[in-house]
Amino acid sequence: MLNEELRKKGERAKEAAFLLSTLSTEKKNQALSKMASALEEQQPKILAANEIDMAAAEAKGVGKALLDRLALSAARIKDMADGLRALVALPDPVGQVEALWKGAQDIEIGRMRVPLGVVGIIYEARPNVTADAAGLCLKAGNAVILRGGSDALHSNIAITEVLAEAVLASGLPDGSIQLIEDTSRETATQMMKMNGYLDVLIPRGGAGLIRSVVENATVPVIETGIGNCHIYVDSAADLQMAEEIVINAKTQRPGVCNAAETLLVHEKVAGEFLPVIAEKLLQCGVELRGDDLTRKYISVVKAATEEDYQTEYLDLILAVKVVGSAEEAMEHIRRYGTKHSEAIVTENYSTARQFLQKVDAAAVYVNASTRFTDGFQFGFGAEIGISTQKLHARGPMGLKELTTVKHIVYGQGQARK
Amino acid sequence: MLNEELRKKGERAKEAAFLLSTLSTEKKNQALSKMASALEEQQPKILAANEIDMAAAEAKGVGKALLDRLALSAARIKDMADGLRALVALPDPVGQVEALWKGAQDIEIGRMRVPLGVVGIIYEARPNVTADAAGLCLKAGNAVILRGGSDALHSNIAITEVLAEAVLASGLPDGSIQLIEDTSRETATQMMKMNGYLDVLIPRGGAGLIRSVVENATVPVIETGIGNCHIYVDSAADLQMAEEIVINAKTQRPGVCNAAETLLVHEKVAGEFLPVIAEKLLQCGVELRGDDLTRKYISVVKAATEEDYQTEYLDLILAVKVVGSAEEAMEHIRRYGTKHSEAIVTENYSTARQFLQKVDAAAVYVNASTRFTDGFQFGFGAEIGISTQKLHARGPMGLKELTTVKHIVYGQGQARK
Repeated sequence: MLNEELRKKGERAKEAAFLLSTLSTEKKNQALSKMASALEEQQPKILAANEIDMAAAEAKGVGKALLDRLALSAARIKDMADGLRALVALPDPVGQVEALWKGAQDIEIGRMRVPLGVVGIIYEARPNVTADAAGLCLKAGNAVILRGGSDALHSNIAITEVLAEAVLASGLPDGSIQLIEDTSRETATQMMKMNGYLDVLIPRGGAGLIRSVVENATVPVIETGIGNCHIYVDSAADLQMAEEIVINAKTQRPGVCNAAETLLVHEKVAGEFLPVIAEKLLQCGVELRGDDLTRKYISVVKAATEEDYQTEYLDLILAVKVVGSAEEAMEHIRRYGTKHSEAIVTENYSTARQFLQKVDAAAVYVNASTRFTDGFQFGFGAEIGISTQKLHARGPMGLKELTTVKHIVYGQGQARK
Repeated sequence: MLNEELRKKGERAKEAAFLLSTLSTEKKNQALSKMASALEEQQPKILAANEIDMAAAEAKGVGKALLDRLALSAARIKDMADGLRALVALPDPVGQVEALWKGAQDIEIGRMRVPLGVVGIIYEARPNVTADAAGLCLKAGNAVILRGGSDALHSNIAITEVLAEAVLASGLPDGSIQLIEDTSRETATQMMKMNGYLDVLIPRGGAGLIRSVVENATVPVIETGIGNCHIYVDSAADLQMAEEIVINAKTQRPGVCNAAETLLVHEKVAGEFLPVIAEKLLQCGVELRGDDLTRKYISVVKAATEEDYQTEYLDLILAVKVVGSAEEAMEHIRRYGTKHSEAIVTENYSTARQFLQKVDAAAVYVNASTRFTDGFQFGFGAEIGISTQKLHARGPMGLKELTTVKHIVYGQGQARK
């Protein structure tokens, strides 16, 4: 049974979703602009709320990384506002007819993009997700129910209030953007079972959160985020290029899901490549862990274990393994990869094609850094998350992935034979 | 924890899926042809197994409708074989690149269709689903794990054995087509939690089965089938056309999900339309249940209750309601519909457009019978089921819906800035 807060917010969201689904693009864009201005105008209110969260987090003694994710500033609020304004310029997927064809007896069938309905987002510390997710859902014609982490509760309440007021002032339904204020685990679990209210639930956060959602949810879920990504440097690699790609994939932003966690190197080039890359990586502060063969060429902090190959470090640590062939590299990826982003560096045409064909992941790269798996880098102009499941959406999800389709059928009295 | 049968079959399916994913279309088509011939050649074996199931079902005293669904014959086996042969002619979705565009720094990104991996199908009495589902999954490059009802166990074992032998003889991996022979409820529940093995689970059957899957599954699910479908006869309807559509949608095959369950009639035409349609429906053996207004125009078997409007009869029963406007009809559909198939009969341009826009369902019709919501009628050439959820696929699902995408990225050494 749902508690009163969830049931009420669910009802209001459903009602709002119905109204949002047929709204003109212009109306939605006006609301987004108003939301952006409201965030900037009410910056003092948001910063004051954030200070309460920050003080509580510091008192609790949470780590520096978490504090940084939690902290808001004038600049970060401007980024949130700019993010909303950027959505205005993006094409509205709703109402687009992707195909129109003739079925039996010449009925005409069109596949039209329509909003999903009510989207649930469950996330952790970063309060900027509140504005990002709300804006994306609104532009795609969905109502959203947000459930952020307890550490960011005051910030999230303030942001949601500001956004919801702006939405209402734009003539859009209240209930378009709602936050669940009860941050207990029980309520989170209930949210995962809001069948009849939520059309989809998207978890954004660490492995623990995502696992909990997958295990408990009875509403449809889009899994996001876990990325144990590999770079395979083939015997036919341009080693200069390989160096740049490995450095970028590991160090440009190590704490994110599309950063590389394991480097696979073909034995034919290991002797030449490993000492060079090891030195560069050390200069970047990367700790290396390698298998027996790797340790013939370079010294590493510790031997790589089975567990290392399974781990998404999200840190300046890289597991290294020397392989005898591209097949062995692909086999390693198949065994340890999480089907997020996988890259090969090679100049060999056939090896490149085989890697693209055989490796199963949301994004498979030849001669580019895995760090490109991102809605903005892919050109979607926005991103609600990166799907690591196979249903509905795979890889970066933009506005289109926040919609579904309906079939519109034009007849002239056809009855089925 | 998974039992031994599920774990073993899961492992074999995963291995098979990996090999199937890169198989040429020709190889898959050869296997489908062999499967079709094998069904015909081994007809005696299949019919003998079916006799065991039929005798047991008769002894148990199961109803006539179920017995009919369970029964196989030479003609039904030929239909199954022809169904497999029809798949040969269909285009292979795997490997198709739907779009290729430039992302940041001119990385080239292609969206390529790839198999889902391992598909689980959980279904009830009809043994022909075994061959249909196996063929569809194979053509789309997936391994399949089937779990049929206990009543059809011997038939399903025989069919699966015949198909699996043919697959193996075609050089495809064993493990491509497997049946779970333990038909206990516990094993079914375990199957719903085969995370790491099943990429998707598709239930095909009645409301009870689908509810059980939605509640228990931790693997991604595609909900199918429940259809509380409406026909709304507008004040501007061509009443002759409305008559044909209502008769067709209700009586052409009442036991299926796209048959109509409720008739909504605009009050302006109720006096003219209801007596005529009521007589025709009575001639077809349809029992009518109507609201107060309806009963002013025609006599019905009983007054329609709240429960009637909620019920998917799957039978020759039709609930009737007179409405004051198209808005009231849409409101009724929004309240009671299951978002499957909804139809309006009207010659009014604006009303037709509003109905198409505002009614949220897998298929929304103007001037055609809801019975067209079907993979064959839609021109897909095949159907694994009709999705009534919003994620991944909505409406009839053919081969394409049994695939997902991966992004293939061609670079020239790009690193993220």
